[in-house]
Amino acid sequence: MKKGRPAKRTRGQPVKVAQLPWRRIINPYPPVELLSVDELEHIHSAALEILECDGVEFLLEEALDILQAAGAEVDRHSKRARFEPGLILESIAKAPREFVIRARNPKRDIALGRKNINFATVASAPNTSDRERGRRPGTFADFEELLRLAQMINVVHTIGGYPVEPTDLPATTRHLDCVRSMILLSDKTFRLYALGRARITDGLEMARISRGLSREEMIREVCVYTNINVNSPLRIDGPMLAGLIEMATHNQAIIITPFTLCGAMAPVTLAGALAQQNAEALAAITFAQMVRPGTPIVYGGFTSNVDMKSGAPAFGTPENVKATLASGQLARRYDLPFRASNTNSSNTVDAQATYESLFSLWAAVMGGSTFVQHGAGWLEGGLVASFEKMILDAELLQNFAEILVPIRVDSETLALDAIREVGPGGHFFGASHTLARYRDAFYTPLLSDWRNYETWRESGAQTTDQRATLVFKKLLAEYEPPAIDPAIVEALDDFVARRKDAGGAES
Amino acid sequence: MKKGRPAKRTRGQPVKVAQLPWRRIINPYPPVELLSVDELEHIHSAALEILECDGVEFLLEEALDILQAAGAEVDRHSKRARFEPGLILESIAKAPREFVIRARNPKRDIALGRKNINFATVASAPNTSDRERGRRPGTFADFEELLRLAQMINVVHTIGGYPVEPTDLPATTRHLDCVRSMILLSDKTFRLYALGRARITDGLEMARISRGLSREEMIREVCVYTNINVNSPLRIDGPMLAGLIEMATHNQAIIITPFTLCGAMAPVTLAGALAQQNAEALAAITFAQMVRPGTPIVYGGFTSNVDMKSGAPAFGTPENVKATLASGQLARRYDLPFRASNTNSSNTVDAQATYESLFSLWAAVMGGSTFVQHGAGWLEGGLVASFEKMILDAELLQNFAEILVPIRVDSETLALDAIREVGPGGHFFGASHTLARYRDAFYTPLLSDWRNYETWRESGAQTTDQRATLVFKKLLAEYEPPAIDPAIVEALDDFVARRKDAGGAES
Repeated sequence: MKKGRPAKRTRGQPVKVAQLPWRRIINPYPPVELLSVDELEHIHSAALEILECDGVEFLLEEALDILQAAGAEVDRHSKRARFEPGLILESIAKAPREFVIRARNPKRDIALGRKNINFATVASAPNTSDRERGRRPGTFADFEELLRLAQMINVVHTIGGYPVEPTDLPATTRHLDCVRSMILLSDKTFRLYALGRARITDGLEMARISRGLSREEMIREVCVYTNINVNSPLRIDGPMLAGLIEMATHNQAIIITPFTLCGAMAPVTLAGALAQQNAEALAAITFAQMVRPGTPIVYGGFTSNVDMKSGAPAFGTPENVKATLASGQLARRYDLPFRASNTNSSNTVDAQATYESLFSLWAAVMGGSTFVQHGAGWLEGGLVASFEKMILDAELLQNFAEILVPIRVDSETLALDAIREVGPGGHFFGASHTLARYRDAFYTPLLSDWRNYETWRESGAQTTDQRATLVFKKLLAEYEPPAIDPAIVEALDDFVARRKDAGGAES
Repeated sequence: MKKGRPAKRTRGQPVKVAQLPWRRIINPYPPVELLSVDELEHIHSAALEILECDGVEFLLEEALDILQAAGAEVDRHSKRARFEPGLILESIAKAPREFVIRARNPKRDIALGRKNINFATVASAPNTSDRERGRRPGTFADFEELLRLAQMINVVHTIGGYPVEPTDLPATTRHLDCVRSMILLSDKTFRLYALGRARITDGLEMARISRGLSREEMIREVCVYTNINVNSPLRIDGPMLAGLIEMATHNQAIIITPFTLCGAMAPVTLAGALAQQNAEALAAITFAQMVRPGTPIVYGGFTSNVDMKSGAPAFGTPENVKATLASGQLARRYDLPFRASNTNSSNTVDAQATYESLFSLWAAVMGGSTFVQHGAGWLEGGLVASFEKMILDAELLQNFAEILVPIRVDSETLALDAIREVGPGGHFFGASHTLARYRDAFYTPLLSDWRNYETWRESGAQTTDQRATLVFKKLLAEYEPPAIDPAIVEALDDFVARRKDAGGAES
C-alpha cells in the first residue's frame, strides 16, 4: 500500500505536496445498524402509507402523464400522484445496485454501490473564501481555481457540482462555460444541474463530446450524474422533473435527495423526518424507473435539524448523525447506493467546522454511503466554498482512506522475531524489522504539525487553517491541466459558441 | 430524555451554562469489527507465544514470588516470567466482566463493562494552558481549578487522575494534597497513582475515610481505580507492581495499559504492536488475578504510532484508530471491559486538535470502550491540560452522549398526522406536532455558533477556542463545592497531617 510519503525534492524544483495517490476506496467494515429491523420496517411502512394516502406533488404535466401511464393515481388539479405499495416496490427494484460512472480519463472512473465509497467536492455555494482574499461572492475565476484545486487533490474522486456559483456569468449561458471548464480543467467525473431540460441536454451533449461517444454509446455508459432535490415536504419542482426525465432517458445517473430539515421542512421528530424523506426518495426513484427502467440512481439522505431559536439549519449535529446512519439502513433495505454529505454550519475554518464536518463524515462512512457530497470545501451551511476548508477536508478524507485499509495480519506483520530481538526495555527504532518498513509504515498527514511546542512556536505558531492556506497555494502552483485531444476541445468550443449564439437556456 | 436546554434566567442572576444533565451513558450500537475472527485469533495466539517463549520482566522481587507460586516460570536472574497459555486463560477468566466504582456521592457511581461508557478527564499533564494566562508548568492552583471545572461538566464522569501535575508541591506529600482535593472539590470517582506502595495505601485510606467505610467494607466495594502502564516492551516497573499489588489486595480497580507506540516501543507494524500490547496486557491482568482472584480490571489499549521523521508520538492517526478498534475486539475476546483514550498532538486548540481528538474518540466509542481516559482536556500529546480543550472535548462528549440515544420510532414520532396536516410545499414551524416538542427536540450545543456570518462577524467573529474561554470561566464562576460531612473533612485532614508529619512517601 502506497502512503503519502515525504515528497521528493528534485534539484531546483520546489517540494511537492505529499498526498495519497488517487485510488478507489472500499469500505470493508460493516455499517452501523442504529435501527432495529422492526423500527426500520416501521419507517418503511410509514413511508408507503404517505405515498398511498397523501402522495407527492409533481409540478410538471409531462411527469404526471408518465406517472398516470405507469399506474400511479394522478390528481391533475392538485398535481398529486399517489402510489400503491406494490407499484413503488416493483419500480425501485429495477434500479441497479451498483454501477460505474465513466470519466474522460478511464483512470478516474468511479464505482457506486456496495462497498465503494467516493468523495465529491463542495457544490453550489454562492460565496467563496480564503484567508488572504476574504469572503466574497463567487466568480468564474474562483470557480476555475476551485476546480483546479479539486483536480489536484487525489482523495477527491469527483466534481460534485459547481464548487462555487460563478455569479459574474449570465444565467442563460453559465452552464455552457461551467461544463466546459469542468471538462477541460479536470479529468474527473462531474455533475450536471437539473435546472430545466435545456441545461441537461447541453451538458449531456458536452459530456458525450468529451468522451468521443456516439449517442447510442452514451446510453450504454453512464458518464455524468445529477442531483434531484425534493422541494420538501412532498413536492418536486418542474425544472427538476424536466432535468430528471432527460437524464433518465439517457440512462445517466441521478442522486435523489429530499431536503428534510427536522422542524422546518419535515417533522421535528427524527422518525417522522425519516419517514417523509423515505417517502419522497421512493417517489422520485419510482418516477425515474418509470421514465426508463434501470436508470442508475442513488438514494440520498440529507436529514438534519434546524436551530429552533433562529430557524437556521444545523449540520453535523447528533440528530444529523443518527439520521444519516438510519438513512443508510433504509438505502440498504432497498439495495440502493446511498449518498450522504460532509457538512457544517461554522463561519470559519476552526474547531466547530472540524467537529461538525467530522461527525457528519463518520456517519457517512459508518452509514455505508457510496457517495459523499460536499466532501471537500463546504463551510457556513453551504453558503461558502472555502479554499482552506477544502484542504482540511482533504486531510479528513485521507485519514478515512487509510482507516478503511484493513490491518494486515500475517507472520511478517506480527513481528515475533522483532519483538524477541528487541526484548524487554529495548526500543524498535533500530530494529531491522523497523528499518525495512518505516518509510511507508504510517500515514503522512497533509496538515497536522507534530513538532514540539517550542519548535512550533519559534517557527510562527501557525494554526491548522493557516497551514491550509500554504497547502492550497502550493497545490495550485503545481497544477497542470490534464491532457485532452485538441479535436475534442475544438468540438466543445464549437458547441458552446453555437449554443451561446442561440441564446443558451431560458433563465 | 432531557436535553441541554436553553438555561433559565433568574432575576439578578447570570444565565447558567446550558449543558446535558449528568447521566450514565449506554452504547447501544454494535462495535465495529475490524479484524476477522481468524485475524483476531492470530493476534491472540501470537500474544500467547510471546508470553510462553519470551515472557515479561517484572522488576519487583515480591511480584516474582507471587508469579512463581502461582505457576509461572520465573527466571530470577533476568527477572522474567514466562506463562503457559493455560495459566493465562485461567487467570484472566477470573476478572469480572462488569463492575461498579462507587463515588462518595452515590449518584456519581460509574459502571464499567458491557455497554457502559464513561468519560474521564485528562490526567498527568506537566503543563496547563488557557488563552488568557498562556502555557505554564502546572501548579496546585491550576490543579484545583481544573478539578472544579471537571466537577462542573456533567458529561465528565470521573477524575481520570491529576489533570495537571502540581509541580509546586513536594513529591513526597503531593499525593496527600491531591487526593484530599479530589475528594473535597468533586464528588465524582477518581484515580490513584501506582507510584509505589505508600502512595496507594495512603490513597486507599483517604478514599475509605471519604466514604465512611470500614476496611472490610471497602474490600467488598470498589471505590477507586489506578492505571498500570506497562513500560513497553515487555517490562513492568517495580513501583507500578507494588501499587498494583496493593490495589488488587484491596479489590480496587486496575486499568492495565501497555504503552505501545509503533516503531518505538513496539513493532512498526500494527499487527505486531497489537500482539505485543496483548501479551503485555494479558501478563499484567494475569498477575493481578494471581494477587487476588476477581480483582476488577480493565483492558487498556494505547497503541498509536510515532512520526518516523522525528520520533514524536502521533495520536488520532489512522493507525491509532485501527489499533483502538482492534483492541476493543481483543478485550471482547476475553470478555473484559475496554479502555481507550481521547488524544491528539496539536500545539493549540485548533482544527488539528479537533480532528485528531475526534478520530480517536470515534474509535473509542465504535470500539466499544467502557472507559475513555483523557476524555476532556488533553493537548500536545499529553504535555498540556488545556482549559479550552476541556470545553471543546465536553462538546464532543455531549454530542456522543446524544448520538448514543436511539431514535424513538412509534406512531407519535412518525408524525403521519403532522405530515398530512402540513402537506406538500408547507412548513412545519407552526405545526402543532412541532410546537408541542420543539423545546426539547434537539441537542443544544455548548460551543457551536449557528448564527449567520454577518451577525457572527458583527459580534466579534469569535472562533470556537475563544468561545471556549468564556464557557470555562462561566462554569468556574458557577462552581459550588459538593456537600460533605464536616466529620469526614476533619478525619481526612487529620490523616493528611499525620502522614505529612511522618514524611509522606519516599520520592
